[in-house]
Amino acid sequence: MKNIAILGSSGSIGTQALEVVRENPQLFKVSVLTVNKSAELLIQQALEFLPEYAVIVEEAQFTTVKEALAHTSIKVLAGEEALCEVVQSPQIDIVLTALVGFCGLRPTIAAIKAGKDIALANKETLVVAGDIVTALAKEYKVNILPVDSEHSAIFQCLVGESSNPIEKIYLTASGGPFRGKDSTFLATVTKAQALKHPNWVMGAKITIDSASLMNKGLEVIEAKWLFDLEADQIDVIVHPQSIIHSIVQFNDGSMKAQMGLPDMKLPIQYALAYPSRINSSFERFDFLKYPQLTFEQPDKKTFRNLAIAFEALRKGGNTACVINAANEVAVAEFLNDQVGFLEMSEVIESCMNKIAYISQPTLEDYLATDKETRVYAKELVQKSKVKY
Amino acid sequence: MKNIAILGSSGSIGTQALEVVRENPQLFKVSVLTVNKSAELLIQQALEFLPEYAVIVEEAQFTTVKEALAHTSIKVLAGEEALCEVVQSPQIDIVLTALVGFCGLRPTIAAIKAGKDIALANKETLVVAGDIVTALAKEYKVNILPVDSEHSAIFQCLVGESSNPIEKIYLTASGGPFRGKDSTFLATVTKAQALKHPNWVMGAKITIDSASLMNKGLEVIEAKWLFDLEADQIDVIVHPQSIIHSIVQFNDGSMKAQMGLPDMKLPIQYALAYPSRINSSFERFDFLKYPQLTFEQPDKKTFRNLAIAFEALRKGGNTACVINAANEVAVAEFLNDQVGFLEMSEVIESCMNKIAYISQPTLEDYLATDKETRVYAKELVQKSKVKY
Repeated sequence: MKNIAILGSSGSIGTQALEVVRENPQLFKVSVLTVNKSAELLIQQALEFLPEYAVIVEEAQFTTVKEALAHTSIKVLAGEEALCEVVQSPQIDIVLTALVGFCGLRPTIAAIKAGKDIALANKETLVVAGDIVTALAKEYKVNILPVDSEHSAIFQCLVGESSNPIEKIYLTASGGPFRGKDSTFLATVTKAQALKHPNWVMGAKITIDSASLMNKGLEVIEAKWLFDLEADQIDVIVHPQSIIHSIVQFNDGSMKAQMGLPDMKLPIQYALAYPSRINSSFERFDFLKYPQLTFEQPDKKTFRNLAIAFEALRKGGNTACVINAANEVAVAEFLNDQVGFLEMSEVIESCMNKIAYISQPTLEDYLATDKETRVYAKELVQKSKVKY
Repeated sequence: MKNIAILGSSGSIGTQALEVVRENPQLFKVSVLTVNKSAELLIQQALEFLPEYAVIVEEAQFTTVKEALAHTSIKVLAGEEALCEVVQSPQIDIVLTALVGFCGLRPTIAAIKAGKDIALANKETLVVAGDIVTALAKEYKVNILPVDSEHSAIFQCLVGESSNPIEKIYLTASGGPFRGKDSTFLATVTKAQALKHPNWVMGAKITIDSASLMNKGLEVIEAKWLFDLEADQIDVIVHPQSIIHSIVQFNDGSMKAQMGLPDMKLPIQYALAYPSRINSSFERFDFLKYPQLTFEQPDKKTFRNLAIAFEALRKGGNTACVINAANEVAVAEFLNDQVGFLEMSEVIESCMNKIAYISQPTLEDYLATDKETRVYAKELVQKSKVKY
């Protein structure tokens, strides 16, 4: 029986993780549930799974949650600091970090320092501060188990191969809803169009990131830290069917790929149950329904975010932290109809050029870089609104 | 440093294995070389690799080999029994069984009983007597490391997954040179046409088996024994590009595939160096050169051998031994222009219906079944010659 803390239980990954727990009560118990502001859902989930802790980040809703759970033994907390506290509870075996964006960093570090394994769905943690997080994981001997389908694929392919050097990896990309489109088209793209992903059902932020290829860019940086790779060892290949989830190439030229129908529950349950696989009733892949699996080069010229991410990876230091913060602002403002689709890349590039480079940042440097970038990105959005 | 015995060093697998040894002198040393009748090549190989033993099965050529190697310390032997002796040499770590057909069975058993790991390129050994061979391997705690590209693929995908049940496997098949053809066409096929495989360069027997899909049928039976599967857990999917070499599906629905350009040196060196992978200069696969990987159902109606093999697998007992012997006769006679392409299946089916079924055969039963089947198959060929 594994005790799980789910940070971000109201989101797409969080709710699917709870389905996995619901289907496997003999294997998993929920110890912690946290949400940002979805009080109603948190109450409902807490009443079903009876965790030790329920946390609502938005403090204004504390009383609502507290009162609804008053008749239970569940401890209710509020505020961002509470996330860092609850992950340290002695009964927790593994922390699923399913929150969105930079805010995942500090609770993840707290969990690692408390010796908890991490099921990492919050890729921004590694993008922003991969050096610090992976060094801590090593120091505290905890596993970082990727939940992203691509990284789960690589991780699954590497099982049993720990002594065999990786030559390179291919992260597959669906190409998103705008694959094959040009800049003229992208300039006119609406929020509604960008939110329609062809293969995966996900939260809003990651869906926009997928449409702009920034998600793939962040995944490239995430892969660097998870698998200890150089930029030249990571390639992205567009595979519109999303059946092959990613590929490892070893030093003998042999490649291993992990495949299946796109369903996030598989990588979620793999990370939670690792090293065991759990019998599942998920629909199976059928080759005859997919007689062709196709591959093409990503269009880094039109989708500049992917090129920006590779550039950030090569520059190192606090650059990835900058592009992540700039992107979070840009996506939020795109979802608020404040910037256009292509201007998101402009905001990110401008931030990358503006914010001071720090070659070996401390955690405080990362926090400062993040803050500074957000301020500057918002200024840029204000200016761009004039032309938009 | 691993000491290797190569049984069948003059064939396609044998010569490629020697290339692997030549390229990795710090890892491998050749202890035994054996050929059926290619005396000149054996002499040349022995002079280069200086094994402990050189064996020529065809006794008439013993003196030629003996004299050519007289000035060396290489021990020269002749005859089929010698194969069973030399594999027991104390210095051998692993025996590569690269001989063709039923004759691989007894030397393989001798090697297992001497505690040697087996790099198995002679699939007929498992097809004929898989129950006995795998039970012995267990008893003597030796590894059977598949060299067939499909089985190597499955084996590579299973590394690190020993505690996770296999749901099913997909063996990929190129479909051979006659993919998509109908029976009318197949009835007129010539030896020269059948010997042209689209993707793999291999020996004559396996190339004909590939054209008739019997190779895939034998591989299905081989997979049953290597990976302890039931017939229903094995599927064959036609994949004309031969890039995905085979696929495992686990009980959670996740699939792992091994991929790469078709080059037998990879599975050969994987089996010899297992569990390590050896850095290689083999050409790497490039997705952009293969923008489409395609899949289709095999045509078991036209290519009856595949259906026959599944039937043999389900019947069990000595049935697979029967179809293997019948097929060896049929292929030899096809290569001698004595039977037509489609008649090969007729010979095999007739033998399967004729030869007495034994549910739990001993090794002696298998040897007798093999002999009896060959006699009957040759009779059938004599009769069919009349109409051919």
